Amino acid sequence: MSEKLFKKVSLIGLGLIGSSLGLVMHQRGLVGHISGFARSKATRDKAMEIGFIDSVCETAAESVKDADLVIVCAPVGVMGDIAREIAPELKPGAIITDVGSVKSAIIEAMAPHLPDNVHFIPGHPIAGSEKSGPESGYAELFINRWTILTPPDGSDSVQVERLEQFWQACGANVEIMDVEHHDMVLGITSHLPHLIAYSIVSTASDLEAVTRSEVIKFSAGGFRDFTRIAASDPTMWRDVFLNNREAVLDLLGRFTEDLAALQRAIRWKDGDALFDLFTKSRDIRSGIIEAGQDTAAPDFGRAHIEVDE
Amino acid sequence: MSEKLFKKVSLIGLGLIGSSLGLVMHQRGLVGHISGFARSKATRDKAMEIGFIDSVCETAAESVKDADLVIVCAPVGVMGDIAREIAPELKPGAIITDVGSVKSAIIEAMAPHLPDNVHFIPGHPIAGSEKSGPESGYAELFINRWTILTPPDGSDSVQVERLEQFWQACGANVEIMDVEHHDMVLGITSHLPHLIAYSIVSTASDLEAVTRSEVIKFSAGGFRDFTRIAASDPTMWRDVFLNNREAVLDLLGRFTEDLAALQRAIRWKDGDALFDLFTKSRDIRSGIIEAGQDTAAPDFGRAHIEVDE
Repeated sequence: MSEKLFKKVSLIGLGLIGSSLGLVMHQRGLVGHISGFARSKATRDKAMEIGFIDSVCETAAESVKDADLVIVCAPVGVMGDIAREIAPELKPGAIITDVGSVKSAIIEAMAPHLPDNVHFIPGHPIAGSEKSGPESGYAELFINRWTILTPPDGSDSVQVERLEQFWQACGANVEIMDVEHHDMVLGITSHLPHLIAYSIVSTASDLEAVTRSEVIKFSAGGFRDFTRIAASDPTMWRDVFLNNREAVLDLLGRFTEDLAALQRAIRWKDGDALFDLFTKSRDIRSGIIEAGQDTAAPDFGRAHIEVDE
Repeated sequence: MSEKLFKKVSLIGLGLIGSSLGLVMHQRGLVGHISGFARSKATRDKAMEIGFIDSVCETAAESVKDADLVIVCAPVGVMGDIAREIAPELKPGAIITDVGSVKSAIIEAMAPHLPDNVHFIPGHPIAGSEKSGPESGYAELFINRWTILTPPDGSDSVQVERLEQFWQACGANVEIMDVEHHDMVLGITSHLPHLIAYSIVSTASDLEAVTRSEVIKFSAGGFRDFTRIAASDPTMWRDVFLNNREAVLDLLGRFTEDLAALQRAIRWKDGDALFDLFTKSRDIRSGIIEAGQDTAAPDFGRAHIEVDE
């Protein structure tokens, strides 16, 4: 690409998402210069060593100087502090965005600190892996994934479009969404599944009758898929649950109701109720495969992968 | 292999497990002849067309004639009927085994029908995929997976060893286990995860605030892993829950307790409790990877797979 989308981009936070963004921007030549900051020196050094940023800064404030686009890729819980810290150094007219998994709480935390002469357009790429840290990124992470933008009322539509183009250039599809709706959609598609996965792994490790090594040994029957999700970054997920509390509690209430109904069907040996519900679940799976959000290849068995290794 | 493990094997049921067994027996030349039976004519025809059996029979009873090893690969709910039907035709000295996901209930259903002059050694390969039917099998399904055998008290140890060798020849590791213990271990590693996956998919499809197409579109955040598990065969799973009722209800009670504790931590904003629990879950994941029951490659993002297609 001969014309750069942004002259200078600042990445605040250099974990899975930050490093993947750096890699794809470099690979596709999207921007002029990438400046990076991370709280830990080890992460900063690793980022320069891998080379997904062009320069590294010792403070977030220094990193955002002259940046036309600032992408905050930090855990939800520290977003407010970062906004306060970078606010005085932001270039007038710059776009400030983030990649946080919850949106209402981030806007509440960041918006009050930001000056009026920048464009704050919160965002969320629905792309991830159970890996975290600067070494876990890859340039293809966003391809064929959705990034949701939640611009506040009165946002400059030209700037929203620029940010949209940036994400598309990274390989993503973009959807514009209302803040509260985002938090409910992600509550069911991401937050509740993670909470449940963490919970069942905890249940399994506390059993007296079944040892931990048995749980590990025989995990291929389904359990290991939960452990993969439950291996995601603890700090990130603590912050997600604390900051999307209402939506998660609402959904959790519905889930436990539904689970109680299944429990009842098992207790009363209602095979038809079980069969009907299990059949219904297949439809949603087909929809996901048709929408290109997963492959139809059998993965649950995963035998071929192990054989090749 | 020049010396065959069994002269004639009969496969009763030709779905994922039956077809995978047929394929691996052929590929490795383990047995002399494979006879097959399935209730549906379409399945029988497909099995012969694919060629993972050598001959097909119109009844289960006919298929077991002269067989040295009979492997019942049918849903748990029909195991009793099959045992009654094949009993008169079983060859004296033959080994009768199965691949069902629950063991106590299968033994209760089958054992009373079987003659004293055969060796009934129940078994369960912990290998599967969300696919079902005769076209879903593959010869590598059992490689590096565990097969659990639950021989009743007083079993002939020579015959148990023969069956053990058979599974090892198919690529599996073999573990001998007590029947009740098997049902509890599988309850936590397989049955409870499936029940929860079915339940959350149901919760998601019943929401008013989030459309089904949104759930599908944004499923990459974690939800799609649940839908994969919840796409497993409804008949098989209905039978599993009805036949491992006590263990599943016990485990479900523990799970909902643990989930309630997490819910409380979110409601009371107890970030430390959430963080500690989320950190603990990572250990079990590491154990599973070390034990070779999953790969460490990031799979949750799965970007590379889609890119290649």
